[in-house]
Amino acid sequence: MINKNSPIGIFDSGLGGLTVLKAVRRLLPSENLIYFGDTARVPYGAKSREAVIAFSKEIAAMLAARGVKLLIVACNTASSLALEEVRKISKAPVIGVVDPGARSAAAGNRRILVIGTAATVASGSYRLALKKLTPRALVREKACPLFVPLVEEGWCGKKATELIASEYLAPFKNKGFDAVILGCTHYPLLKRVISRALGGKVKIIDSAEATAAEAKAVLASRCLLNSGRAGRVRFMASDAPEKFRTLALRLLGIKTGRVEIKRF
Amino acid sequence: MINKNSPIGIFDSGLGGLTVLKAVRRLLPSENLIYFGDTARVPYGAKSREAVIAFSKEIAAMLAARGVKLLIVACNTASSLALEEVRKISKAPVIGVVDPGARSAAAGNRRILVIGTAATVASGSYRLALKKLTPRALVREKACPLFVPLVEEGWCGKKATELIASEYLAPFKNKGFDAVILGCTHYPLLKRVISRALGGKVKIIDSAEATAAEAKAVLASRCLLNSGRAGRVRFMASDAPEKFRTLALRLLGIKTGRVEIKRF
Repeated sequence: MINKNSPIGIFDSGLGGLTVLKAVRRLLPSENLIYFGDTARVPYGAKSREAVIAFSKEIAAMLAARGVKLLIVACNTASSLALEEVRKISKAPVIGVVDPGARSAAAGNRRILVIGTAATVASGSYRLALKKLTPRALVREKACPLFVPLVEEGWCGKKATELIASEYLAPFKNKGFDAVILGCTHYPLLKRVISRALGGKVKIIDSAEATAAEAKAVLASRCLLNSGRAGRVRFMASDAPEKFRTLALRLLGIKTGRVEIKRF
Repeated sequence: MINKNSPIGIFDSGLGGLTVLKAVRRLLPSENLIYFGDTARVPYGAKSREAVIAFSKEIAAMLAARGVKLLIVACNTASSLALEEVRKISKAPVIGVVDPGARSAAAGNRRILVIGTAATVASGSYRLALKKLTPRALVREKACPLFVPLVEEGWCGKKATELIASEYLAPFKNKGFDAVILGCTHYPLLKRVISRALGGKVKIIDSAEATAAEAKAVLASRCLLNSGRAGRVRFMASDAPEKFRTLALRLLGIKTGRVEIKRF
């Protein structure tokens, strides 16, 4: 039976969703959490809709079997391509990162740039969400497919990374954009590089805080918020749990303890 | 029943193994071929031994069910981590790309550099193979994990790619290396950049030709060489067959026709 003590499930293609986990822990420290990173099939950003839907449903079913009271799809690509399909098979409420991110960006910004993986940008998910919220805003989208491998290699501060960011973002530099949505959970780790490549004055929006706030609202509306002592956090990955543990600490300062392995 | 008309199976994590397919077609134009690219789970180079073995065995079994007379593991990572395990479950003979590549390099070279994915380099597969063939040669190995995403994005000629290659290879530039083994099937597409980063005078060795020669020898020894009219080539992928078709043409000039999809 699902109750207040049931965990929140959070999944991502790999490590990037840990930025969302961090925001959820800050806002809801009493909640029990299960995080799953699909490290055997990472990255999702260059794969097809069918593949991303199949992977996401498999993970959602696995987390449902562990009794989650809420499922957070922390991967922008999966949120863009698979959210509706995951909702169809899920008894627990399901939230993604696109709508919360779009809501943050829509508040007061007229010229909005969205950057993300090839699949996220091709889906037009942010553009559609923004159009509903702020029909008159100008929205531009740009895929930056090399950002994920650069982050995963820890090349966040290198000259080559600056060059690649400049090349991707040159068409949008000093063009009067108010805000840029980091439409991929890896990108917050490149915040400074992205900001410089855009000319320095663009507000940077990531979905993590807004997604955590939405999680709180959804649980509150169902009287499922936990309170009291600190929640437990369980980490799972589909491959290379040691590497997951090392990178979680190095990139995000998260001490995971043991990472369980769940292969598909 | 396996006979001369049975196909040769070739598999890779994605597109890179097409460099091997090309060499096989050139040397053995009468053979029927089946190529499988595991585009749903690409890349393999940062994944664990267990995952690469599981993926490789699944693919080998699928190709065995299609009656292949020889199996070529065209992926360096899978050749390095999974060859023995694939041989255990395979009735057809199995060859990888590491031993043929090492044999090419061992002939007359005393200082040999090996570059490849993180998993290939960590396995030490080339170092071990070279040690048996030419015990006195000096062998150095270097992982270049960003090369695969750069190739897959078509960034082969960009300034950022030059910078990344320089950074990886600076410790080996003008250090008297006779040869560099391209220990990843994607790397032939970066031949010029790699050559410049090493100072221009290093012989570049890729495994494709040597692997094709080994395939011919193995089939000849079993009286299974086909001859006569041109063989048929079938292409399969585990995801995004259209993208596979487009990139095969753009990067390697291969017209695949229809690419069948086989999901796991």
